[in-house]
This record gives sequence, structure tokens and C-alpha cells, in this order.
Amino acid sequence: MSASLLAIYHVESDAGSIDKRAQAIAVEQSVEMPVEAIDNDYVLSEIVGRVEAVKPLGGSRFEVRIALSVDTIGSDAGQLLNMLFGNTSLQDDVVLHDAEIPVALAESFGGPRIGLEGLRQWAGAGPRALTCSALKPQGSPPQKLAALAAAMAQGGIDYIKDDHGLADQSYSTFAARAAAVTKVLRTQGTNTYYVPSLSGDLDTMRQQITVARECGIRALLIAPMIAGLSNFQRLVGENSDLAFMAHPTMAGASRISPPLLLGKLFRMFGADATVFPNYGGRFGYSQATCRDLAQAALGDWQGFRAAVPVPAGGMTLERVGEILDFYGPDSMLLIGGDLLRSGDRISQVAAAFVDQVKRHAHG
Amino acid sequence: MSASLLAIYHVESDAGSIDKRAQAIAVEQSVEMPVEAIDNDYVLSEIVGRVEAVKPLGGSRFEVRIALSVDTIGSDAGQLLNMLFGNTSLQDDVVLHDAEIPVALAESFGGPRIGLEGLRQWAGAGPRALTCSALKPQGSPPQKLAALAAAMAQGGIDYIKDDHGLADQSYSTFAARAAAVTKVLRTQGTNTYYVPSLSGDLDTMRQQITVARECGIRALLIAPMIAGLSNFQRLVGENSDLAFMAHPTMAGASRISPPLLLGKLFRMFGADATVFPNYGGRFGYSQATCRDLAQAALGDWQGFRAAVPVPAGGMTLERVGEILDFYGPDSMLLIGGDLLRSGDRISQVAAAFVDQVKRHAHG
Repeated sequence: MSASLLAIYHVESDAGSIDKRAQAIAVEQSVEMPVEAIDNDYVLSEIVGRVEAVKPLGGSRFEVRIALSVDTIGSDAGQLLNMLFGNTSLQDDVVLHDAEIPVALAESFGGPRIGLEGLRQWAGAGPRALTCSALKPQGSPPQKLAALAAAMAQGGIDYIKDDHGLADQSYSTFAARAAAVTKVLRTQGTNTYYVPSLSGDLDTMRQQITVARECGIRALLIAPMIAGLSNFQRLVGENSDLAFMAHPTMAGASRISPPLLLGKLFRMFGADATVFPNYGGRFGYSQATCRDLAQAALGDWQGFRAAVPVPAGGMTLERVGEILDFYGPDSMLLIGGDLLRSGDRISQVAAAFVDQVKRHAHG
Repeated sequence: MSASLLAIYHVESDAGSIDKRAQAIAVEQSVEMPVEAIDNDYVLSEIVGRVEAVKPLGGSRFEVRIALSVDTIGSDAGQLLNMLFGNTSLQDDVVLHDAEIPVALAESFGGPRIGLEGLRQWAGAGPRALTCSALKPQGSPPQKLAALAAAMAQGGIDYIKDDHGLADQSYSTFAARAAAVTKVLRTQGTNTYYVPSLSGDLDTMRQQITVARECGIRALLIAPMIAGLSNFQRLVGENSDLAFMAHPTMAGASRISPPLLLGKLFRMFGADATVFPNYGGRFGYSQATCRDLAQAALGDWQGFRAAVPVPAGGMTLERVGEILDFYGPDSMLLIGGDLLRSGDRISQVAAAFVDQVKRHAHG
């Protein structure tokens, strides 16, 4: 195989069956037919997946490394996922654990266009962690969400994102929300960015981006697993001056490792920031998963800009110090619900959150 | 809540915690914030998810029925999935088991435009089961795939689909493949339809459809979970004279019940046929899952046309009788790899497959 990527699976199997199972995955993820019925030399030498290594991980778990031809991908994000895990996602005994992507393929995607440094510059944040909150609940009219954004901005929050449930609903259209929120933010005189949520098909998301640009918006929330990875890739390519924050909705927990999907792959396709469930919140991610995910978003890889890890999901103000100790300053802290709990005192509580992040940077 | 859909989850929990867990899912899938911090009456009465019922299923499993406002959906397929399972997909203890969709919402999607009856008419098949095979392996040049299609058509196969791994690769572009395959099929004088595989973003898929139309192609394979459900919905709406066959790649096995996703939802968004892993093949679906899935695709629901269940995945010629006994004639049998095994005798073996299906109908 001349140019290949490596898919790394964790497979449940007994030791006597693992070699056969590994070979079956290699076939499933490439030619999906009996290899003995293939008479084409190019297909046999270049296209059929090749088991590179099988390594016991203890108990009934094995790591299986399979080389897949890059020729099968082109440079399409959806097809990359199809080749890495498509049919095998239907088989319960396999987790897609990691992938090694050759430089040329990675470069064709391009990674974050704005990234950690860009988002810090926009916010005038220097080397500290960034702060983020979320506009909720869905069902609220644009004016109500705008008032909430104003209070958060008064407190000095850097980025205010939509809840990922905010779409283009009749009670709060994307356009009405974008206009209302950006209008109040302009009157605050703070360096706060609004990050509205894209939804719908590619055409609809493009129209939303046009509206957002007219409002002066420079960052957008997108759900790559719902939008379709190829459409995410397309929007990033068309809007390299805008920042994209990726949301993990529908990304599942159990079958593709979060560091690979939310860290490495979303970053490669162009996410400038990636939201994920923090350990100790409402979701079951471990500290190790969160650490690996942050490292995948930030680490030196493929020459890409760093994407900002955005731990979220039931975070509280009391935990800010601990979370900053854990992630360090190369992160964006997202506190949504806990801020909203403070009712009329949102701007003061937001200011306390921001202050804590700033002091931690100098601590 | 004036107009609601019902999401039905299966949740692992102990009996003492299930009510609280059910309430947490209702909040997660709607407002995603502390309910006590919401001061808007409309949001409280209409938008906050409402636990309708909690029912023990035996052991530590519970069925939880949650009403969600249709106002949060609009008529966007991606947003429907986001509301049904978005963040909860990140929590290991929950499976999305089923959904009850109100008529108005279902009608806004529209269901299959061609459906079982249309696909039968096109193929001149009468009331028998339809036959299908697949062009493989990827890596083959268009001429080779075309020759394979010709052999299958000689055998009288109704629908010949691309392997879902066939995208727009340099060694076999969509356009070259579409032209080559349709050219040889025209010379066969049989009633065989080619179903090429769409890939890439919405623009790219549209271009592929334009090319397909120029070749006289009337049916297309699409992977809704990779394309993005909203884009699938858009393409169906724009091409109501074409048939769409949905492929389950990346649809996972474990966290959304296959009858719901591959049967009900894909049908609602417009799949005319839905491919799924048959029991007893390479995948772990049970007979009960397959029966429920076929029923979801075919059954009387929302006034929709029936979508054709297409059992696939390691099926063999020896099993044709058994599979037809199981599914009955309202199905399309897809045999790929096992047909390709027959080498130079593909057309004869395809003819035997077709003959067996026809005889079964009169048995």
C-alpha cells in the first residue's frame, strides 16, 4: 500500500479468534467482499485493508491496527469517517480508538483557521484561559436572550454561545436572535463575541452565516455530527475568517473515542474550539478521557493551529480553580446553567467567574 | 404542552434513582438548564421536556417516555435528531428506543416519494420481492464495475447499487462510473436500475444527482448519518421523482434502536428503501430487531408510502428461501459478496438468485 492511514480499533474478542476478527474488520472497512474473489492486482495490493498489528490490551480486549488506502478517501471528511468506521459502527464489539493520518491528507483538510491564538487575540485575553457561557433556555424570545447576553457581557465573558438546541424556531429565528444579541452587545463596549448556533442543511447554514456576517458576528457554533462532516468541512473552507466552535451533540459516547472524534478529527476538519463534557459533571467522561481530548485539540500535530478545548456540561463556579488547575490556561471554560441560576445577579456572578479565571492566570 | 412528540428511552438505573434520572433526561433534551432558574411561563409550560411515564422493563432497565415540544423542531430532520437524542447520546446508560411523531410534523417530512410500489413498478416486478446486488470492490475502474453490472443485469437483477465505499475517488469518479454503468445496462435490454452512491457535501451530492439524471439514473444510494439528515431531507424534497436507498453506515448499533432510526426515521425523511444488516450475517442484529425494522419501514404509519426493507450483510444464495419466508415478498434481497464469489459465472448465479425469488412468489 503506497499511501495509507492507520485506523486503530479496540476489539472485544477471545485470543483464539482475534486474528480472524482483525482480518474481517480490515475487509469490512475496505472492499467489503470475499478477498479470494478479487482478481485486480491494484485492489489487492493497494485497497484491501491490511492488518498491521494485533496487540493484547488485557482481558478480552485487543488493539487492532489496520492500514487503509488514502486513495479511497480523496479529501472528503464524510468519506474519511465512512472508511474509518462506517459499517464497523454497526458491530458492537469494536471501538474506533484512534487514527493516524498522513500529512498530505491532513493538510488537505487544513485544521483550525483561527484556533486558540486567534480566539485569544479577538478577546484581547493574553495567555489566560478564555471564558464562555450559553444563552438558554430554548423557547425564550430573542429580546430575552439578548438581555441575558448583555448581563453576561457586563460581567466580561469572552464568548457567549447559543445553547445547541437553539435552531431556527418560530419563537426565535436565527436572524432575529443574531440581530437582537449583537445589537445589545455593541452597547456594552466589552470585547464579547456572540457565537450563534447553525442548523439545517448546507444551504440553510450558509444563509445563517450570511445573516451572521451582516450582524458582524465572527464565530459560529456547529454540530458536525448532525450537519454532516463534509458540510462542516465545506463551511470552514468557505469562511476561513470565521471561527467555528464544534458541539458534541449526537457524537455518542461509546463507540468512537472522544479524543479522536472531538479532539483530533474535529480539529483537522477546522474546529477552532471543541466543546466536550467535562469529567465530574452530568456526563461520564473520565479525567483521562478529558486530558487526552484536550491534548488532541492542542498538541503539536500536522502543523495545525491549536483548537481550544472547551470543557462543559454541568460545570459550577466552585470548580473553576480545580478545572483551571487541570486544563491549564490553554482552554476555554464554559459555564452555562450554573450562571443562569443566579437570576438578577448574572452580571455580578459572571464578573466573579471572569475575575477568578484572570487571577488564576497570575496565581 | 400543546403539540408534542414523544421520545421513548430505555434507561439503565436502579429503581430508587429512575424518577430523578428520567427528569434529568427531560431537562437535558429540552432546556438544558436548572428548571428553577426559568421564569418564562411559555418555556415552563411548553418547552421543558415532560416525563409522561416511567415503566420497569425488568432488571435494572426502565422505559421512560418524555414529551418534547414540536415547536423546538420546526421541520428540520437534523434538529429532530438533536432534540430526540443529541446530548443524551453522550450518556452511556440511555438508548433511544422509539419515538411517536405527531401527524403534522411527520407530514412536513413527507416520507418515501417512490416507495415499495414505485420501485416494484419500475422493475416490472409485480408483487414479488425485489432483487439487488452491489458493485464492488472499491479500487476497481469504472469499466470493470460496468462489466460486473452487465453480468448482474443479464441475470435479471432489479437494482444494482454501488458499494457504500464507492465515492468520488480518482480511480473511479462518480461521473465516469455513472456513464460506464448506464451505458452497458442500456445494451442489456433488461429492466435493471443502477443505484450509484452519493458522497460529499450537499453541493457535491447535487452535482452527482445532475450527472446521474443526465445518464438516465432514477435511484440513488445515500448514507444519511454521514450526509447529515437535513441534507438528506433537502435532496429528497428537491428530487421527488427519484428513489433514495438509505445505507446504514455510521448509524451505530447500540444506542438508537435500528427499527426507529433505519426503519421509521429514514422512511419519514424520504428513504424509499432502507438497507440494514440481516440477522445471521456479519452483524449482530437479532431476528426480532430485523422483524421490527421491516415492520417500521412497511407498516401503516402517518399515511406514508411503504419503504422497502433491504436485508443485507453477508447474505448467501443458500439462504434466499429462508429469508423470503421471514420477510415475505414486501422486501428487496441484497446479495453482494456471495454473488461476486462466482467469478465468471456471475450472470448464471444471478439468474439463479432471481429465479429463486420469482419461484418463491408463486410457491
